[in-house]
Amino acid sequence: MKKVAVMGTGSVGQTLSLKFVALGYDVMLGTRNVEEKLAATSKDAYGNPPFREWHEANKSVKLGTFGEAAAFGEAVVNATNGGNSIGALKMAGEENLKGKILIDVANPLDFSRGMPPGLLSDLSNTNSLGEEIQKTFPAARVVKTLNTMWCGLMVNPQLINGGDHNVFICSDDSEAKEDVKGILLLFGWSEKNILDLGGLVAARGTEMYLPLWLSVFGATKNGAFNLKFVS
Amino acid sequence: MKKVAVMGTGSVGQTLSLKFVALGYDVMLGTRNVEEKLAATSKDAYGNPPFREWHEANKSVKLGTFGEAAAFGEAVVNATNGGNSIGALKMAGEENLKGKILIDVANPLDFSRGMPPGLLSDLSNTNSLGEEIQKTFPAARVVKTLNTMWCGLMVNPQLINGGDHNVFICSDDSEAKEDVKGILLLFGWSEKNILDLGGLVAARGTEMYLPLWLSVFGATKNGAFNLKFVS
Repeated sequence: MKKVAVMGTGSVGQTLSLKFVALGYDVMLGTRNVEEKLAATSKDAYGNPPFREWHEANKSVKLGTFGEAAAFGEAVVNATNGGNSIGALKMAGEENLKGKILIDVANPLDFSRGMPPGLLSDLSNTNSLGEEIQKTFPAARVVKTLNTMWCGLMVNPQLINGGDHNVFICSDDSEAKEDVKGILLLFGWSEKNILDLGGLVAARGTEMYLPLWLSVFGATKNGAFNLKFVS
Repeated sequence: MKKVAVMGTGSVGQTLSLKFVALGYDVMLGTRNVEEKLAATSKDAYGNPPFREWHEANKSVKLGTFGEAAAFGEAVVNATNGGNSIGALKMAGEENLKGKILIDVANPLDFSRGMPPGLLSDLSNTNSLGEEIQKTFPAARVVKTLNTMWCGLMVNPQLINGGDHNVFICSDDSEAKEDVKGILLLFGWSEKNILDLGGLVAARGTEMYLPLWLSVFGATKNGAFNLKFVS
């Protein structure tokens, strides 16, 4: 597997794309509308510089529509905003996801009630974004991982504590899960720190951890942190 | 403050009671019905031995109704099942909670859909048990803490990793929060590991962490673990 599609052009998608490129993958970022995305000249809603600037500096990453990217990738990463993920993946097209590993790193954050966000009620507690994606695209091989930290740490765990902290993984597809564990190892995660939580139902817990993450971030003003389980 | 009421006679209430006694506090456990509680001769729903056996071995802990215990305590600990906490505290009586520190260590787990439990939907995401208690008893001084771990660790953090792992605390009453931090220090928590998350709204995050806790417990079969944030 050497061709990867990354859905979503925000900081998470950018960070993951560059890491895959650095690892020798051929990468296409997927977005809703390529022309609109490149035409924007002002900062986005999150204060990031216009995507065009990043794209000009990182020509190694291809750019296409959600559908083009999904058709291109042998594996697909969902790095869209959690609230838009199902819609974005529908635009990617069910046929383009069929049989492919779909790495879901998104969280169903609900910004409608102000900051800090909670979770979207229909995608939490008795459901999760990871499970909803799997239900919507039953032929995709959904693996939930990496959603519990700032994207800088996803691809460079060594940034803090000598890389000694935890990442979670869960999936209903054991083979897909093992393949994605291999990617986590390439990202720099050590095997002992990859915590396999079993089936995709465990995505509920990893997504419901976000409000605590946001509280800790609010208290410390430092996003470069992660949890490590000790026993 | 040397008289403490602990609401709830389960393993959390028992463990906290004995720790308070060991620290020189005068402790009364509160329960719905003292006679019924002492009459039971079979294991409870969680597989614990009959309360009577524990009580006979630990006569230093007084036993009373929720109301008697709350009237007795200068501070009150809520260690009841989260789904019953509001009802239990109503039985304790609003007058008996007035002006008192109320340490809430419970979680609003919903066992109605089988195992592992999720959270009660009306007490999660946009609400929390801690906040609901504060709203229901506005004259109580609610402090949420200790709800993110097995009770054995609450009162003996040194059991694992040399005591180096985190406990959260939040409250809308800053003085009450400082007093409870003092209790955490007595329990053996080091100051650097007590993470102050600010106001009681942060109880949402600490309670929503429970599904992840349960997933990790399910994967490792070891409840004597806790998280430590590294950065």
